[in-house]
Parts: sequence; C-alpha cells; structure tokens
Amino acid sequence: MKAARYYGQRDIRIENIPEPDLRPGTVAIDVAWCGICGTDLHEYAEGPIFVPPAGHPHPISGESAPITLGHEFSGTIVDLGDGVTDLEIGQSVVVEPYIVADDVDTGPGQRYQLSKNVNFIGLGGCGGGLSEKIVVKRRWVHPVGDMPLDQAALIEPLSVSRHAVVRSGARPGQTAIVGGAGPIGLLTLSVLKAYGLKVFISELSAARKAKATAAGADGVFDPREGSVAEMVRDQTQGRGADVAFECSSVPAVLDMLVDAVRPGGVLVNVSIWGHKPAVDMPRLVLKEIDLRGTLAYANDHPDTIALVRQGKVNLKQFITSRIALDKLVQDGIEELIHNNEHQVKIIVNPRA
Amino acid sequence: MKAARYYGQRDIRIENIPEPDLRPGTVAIDVAWCGICGTDLHEYAEGPIFVPPAGHPHPISGESAPITLGHEFSGTIVDLGDGVTDLEIGQSVVVEPYIVADDVDTGPGQRYQLSKNVNFIGLGGCGGGLSEKIVVKRRWVHPVGDMPLDQAALIEPLSVSRHAVVRSGARPGQTAIVGGAGPIGLLTLSVLKAYGLKVFISELSAARKAKATAAGADGVFDPREGSVAEMVRDQTQGRGADVAFECSSVPAVLDMLVDAVRPGGVLVNVSIWGHKPAVDMPRLVLKEIDLRGTLAYANDHPDTIALVRQGKVNLKQFITSRIALDKLVQDGIEELIHNNEHQVKIIVNPRA
Repeated sequence: MKAARYYGQRDIRIENIPEPDLRPGTVAIDVAWCGICGTDLHEYAEGPIFVPPAGHPHPISGESAPITLGHEFSGTIVDLGDGVTDLEIGQSVVVEPYIVADDVDTGPGQRYQLSKNVNFIGLGGCGGGLSEKIVVKRRWVHPVGDMPLDQAALIEPLSVSRHAVVRSGARPGQTAIVGGAGPIGLLTLSVLKAYGLKVFISELSAARKAKATAAGADGVFDPREGSVAEMVRDQTQGRGADVAFECSSVPAVLDMLVDAVRPGGVLVNVSIWGHKPAVDMPRLVLKEIDLRGTLAYANDHPDTIALVRQGKVNLKQFITSRIALDKLVQDGIEELIHNNEHQVKIIVNPRA
Repeated sequence: MKAARYYGQRDIRIENIPEPDLRPGTVAIDVAWCGICGTDLHEYAEGPIFVPPAGHPHPISGESAPITLGHEFSGTIVDLGDGVTDLEIGQSVVVEPYIVADDVDTGPGQRYQLSKNVNFIGLGGCGGGLSEKIVVKRRWVHPVGDMPLDQAALIEPLSVSRHAVVRSGARPGQTAIVGGAGPIGLLTLSVLKAYGLKVFISELSAARKAKATAAGADGVFDPREGSVAEMVRDQTQGRGADVAFECSSVPAVLDMLVDAVRPGGVLVNVSIWGHKPAVDMPRLVLKEIDLRGTLAYANDHPDTIALVRQGKVNLKQFITSRIALDKLVQDGIEELIHNNEHQVKIIVNPRA
C-alpha cells in the first residue's frame, strides 16, 4: 500500500509498504481522509521532534524513523480482530491517535495524555493516516455515525480545542478571547460558540479575520488598531474576558491575553512554543490568573463528535483544500508553510 | 502618638501625629507588635509602589504620601464605635489590612483582594501598624483569643501562605516542593505541614536551610548539589511533586519548579516579580501544569488563626528580632536588606 514515510528533516517519501496485520483486539481501517497538522510541519521543517530518530526506537512502539505520518484521519472499518465485538465492518470511524503503554488506564477522568513516554500514532510509530490502511487497538476507535468522512478528519484537531475549552472551565454566557485565528484558534472559537460563549478573536491577517467572522466570532480585533485588551474591556463593562486561549505562539499575544483576561480568570495555552517566552508574572499575580497548559485530549472524542453531529460545529468551512497523497509535500506541507494565511485544513486522500 | 511615616524612597520618618478618631462601625486598637514585610522593603528601596505618591491620592482612601506604614500587626481593642456589638474592649486582635471600596462584598467565597483599586492599610493610607494606635472598620478585625500578641503579628503573612496553599488545591498526603526558604517560603512550609503534606524545600543559604529543617521540612535540597527536580523525583517514585510554590523571585527556581512538579500538577507563584521572567511554556504544556497567581488573602484569616491556636503552626520560631519604633530603619529595614539570611521576622513595638 502507499504511505507517506518520514525519514528526517525535509525528507518525506511516498513509498509502497506492506499492509499491516490484523491482530486480536485491533481494528483494520481503510483511511478516507487525513489532515495535515502543524505538528507535521514542525517535524518536516525542524524535526525530528516527536518522531523517534533512526536507532532510537520509541520505548512503547519500538519503532524509529522511517515512520508513517498522519494522525488526523477518518476511515471505514474493513476488518475486526478477535475479541472486538462492539464495532461493525463498514462503520465510519476516527482514531484517537495515542501510543501509550498497555497498562495505562484510559477510563473516565484518566489523564492518559500525561502518561509516561506518551506519543502519537503517525508520529511515534504504529502506522499513520497518511497511508491507505491502518490497524489500531480497539480503544482508540470512535464511530462517527453518518458524519461525512472528510469532515471527520477534523475531529482530532477539534478534540484538541474541546479539551482546551474544558481545561479553561468556560461556562455558557461567559466571554472568551482567543489569540490567533489559525486552525486551532478557529476550531477553539467554534467549540466556544457551541458551548454558548461570546468570543472575541485577536488576529492580524485579513484572510484569517474573515474566516473568524464567518465562523461566528462576536468581534475580531486587530492589534494594529490599538490595545486588544482595551477593546475586550470595552465590550465587557470594563471587566475583561473570563477565559483566554493562546493559539499563536507569539509573545505579544500572550502578553495581551494576560492583560485582557479578568481578575481571577483563566488563560489556557494551546499553542506550541519553541522557546521559553517571558510571562507577565507581576500581572498574573496581581490578578490571580490561572495559566494552564493543555495537551491534546483525553476522553474528549465522544463529546467532540457529538458537537458536530448535533450541528453545533460546522467543520466543512475549515476544509480549504483536498489533495492526493502523491502531492503531500508540494501541495500540502509546502503550501501550508508558505501560504498558511489562506489555508485552514488541507486534507489528503491516501487512496487517490 | 508616634508613627513611622513614608515620605518617599529611603525617606521614612518617625513622627508625632494626632491619634485617629473613632467613627461609627470602627474599632480602636492599641498596636502591640507590627512585623516588617518584604513589601515595606521594596517601598523603602525602590518605591513608592503601593504607596500613592504625594499629589496622587488613592481613589478609595483619599490619601497620599506621607502615609503611616505597617500592615502586619496585632493589638488590643481599646474602644468600639457605634454599632459594633460583637467585639469587646480588651480583646486581642489582628487586622486584615485591606482598603477596598465600601460596596465590595467580603462575604464567603468573595475574591475581594481582586476588587478595583484594592490597596492595603499601612501602604495605601488608613493608618498603619507602625504607630501606637489605629482605627479600622469592623470587618477587618479578627480576634485571636489567647494567642500571644507577638506571634499574632505574623498572622498576616501566614494568611498569605494559607491563601497560596488553598489556591494550589493541596491535599493531605500529597507532596510539595517550595522554592526558597525566606519568610514566605518558611510560612508556606508551615501551612503545608499543618495540612498534612510532605514538603521539600530548595534553598542555597545555610542559615535558611537550618530554619527550614527546624520548621519541619522533610527534605532540604541545595541546587548546587545537583538537579533539585531530580531529587524530588527520587523521593516520589519518579513522579514529581503534586504542588509547587515559587517563593524566591529567582528565574532558575521557577524553571526548576516547572520541572519538579508532576504532570497535571499545580505551581503557585507566591513571590513578587519586578520583571517578566521566562517561563518554560513547552514543559508547562506537555505536562498540563496549572501556573497560578496568588494575591494576599480573602477570608483566610479565621482558619489561619485556628491553625496557630490549635498548635499546628509554631510562629514563635520565626520571630528573630524585636525592636522599638525609633530603630525601625536602622535595626529593622536596613538589617533585613543587608542581613536577610539570618532574619525571618523582625517585629516592632511602636509603644516602646
């Protein structure tokens, strides 16, 4: 079968590899669509980061580069391993792409995303969504009902946003400020709107501002036009936002959010930082702000899928391009690196 | 009466000023002892910070420099204003030294320390504990029973630590790491021990290390002897501390605490920063750490007083010097600035 294999920095190859074997307790899936994630771009341009380098196998998967990429994917069940009795061949599903030790509890309330040596299918081994087929353990498979499979490929990043929103403790009727309207900023906006908040966005790019407005932002503020924190206070009777989300990895945005959130508010950092940014600790102390890290998801997939199936989140608007696997680097990764203002999600069909 | 008056940077004068008037709803207190706080040192060496400069009266107190200093104090009730019926002349009390607007709710669960224009008695006006007598509103007066009045002067900073510990969500049986064994680090250690935690301290100074050990630390780690985070993991089956407290204002300590706290743990910043320190955001994200600011106290005084009265916190050990008001600058403030390793709390008798 065809697969996109990561060999090292700026070295991704489309190759033919053997199909994976069905084992007891696993599910075989024909991949329909796989999104390209910011993490994939980082691996390509600056990695390996999550990918275990050749000669340094991951302690759980036992694999190292080359590995098959792709962790935001949907597909159709084509076979069920022994003991898997609660799924059916033909079902549309998504995969929660974790690599964790077998004895890690993934039950309700468990924070398995923080377990030792955690990694991701499609980065740390175990196959990936940028291939025609994958076999994964039952516990990572989530049926999506009649959700179109192209949209279902966006459930994984939407779960990241859903997890971040839950981390914030946001409640209906509250006000949020989201810093940055890239893919994760837009998806976080969507979840916040679905949960009944008023949502403001800070963004510079005209193209992204338009997308935020279309996605339901109650206000889109441009830092070049004045203090965004002041604009937020103007809209909240001087109080500030109840919750804030850093989705830009820009120090000035982080600073603005510490300013824009109300005393006693919560600021969730959703973005990935390549360095240690300065944090306005004097203000964080005087306002008793909670600055919370958020990592991926844990038991978020079912509720995330429900948000989309109930029509509360429209994922279709965020699919800006569809490409075949052969064009992954040129029309996918390079396009996102050089033209990211105009793209949200590029999804890849590994069987095209 | 005698009072220590702050005129400006390095300009504190012991003067004679009129006694304050008793008004309806207020309580007149003869001050017994008043501690010197790190905040007082900052006002002296780098201020005015909290003190409203001359010509810029505080919006609630209406006062500006010169103001009477001192916000960590105990005393005896000598008179009660009209309408104060639930206290008695002769009672030993401490004052929760807030200046907030009259309409701010200070009931249970209210975070009045975050209210608009909040300031402190003894910094923002309304008299201070570094004078013979003070008159304060009933709601800020807390009886201390038979607690010795010298120890009672430490209830205010102990309430800061109690509030920080509550902010952390620490539970009995958990493990804490405290960065820095200055006055607030030592008091935070004491509260954590009173609440049944195992507590490790990171500290360089030999004198402070000895004080931490005497105060009940379960381990005192010196960063010069290796990675303190590793030492904490060695003591916690590799897991890390459940809660961490930054009490040093040292960037390397903040970094160490982000490393030493377990995944999903809470790091409370108790210290005051004069700049915006770099924060290890990559690690904060990967471990889903909560970094929480904490400011002073709110409805913490009664439980703080109970900890001492029940014998769970020994405040006596932290009183390292007693001086008369006339010696405030020379034997109090300058001593703490230049010889702080060997002092914890210097308390001042304004009537001596």
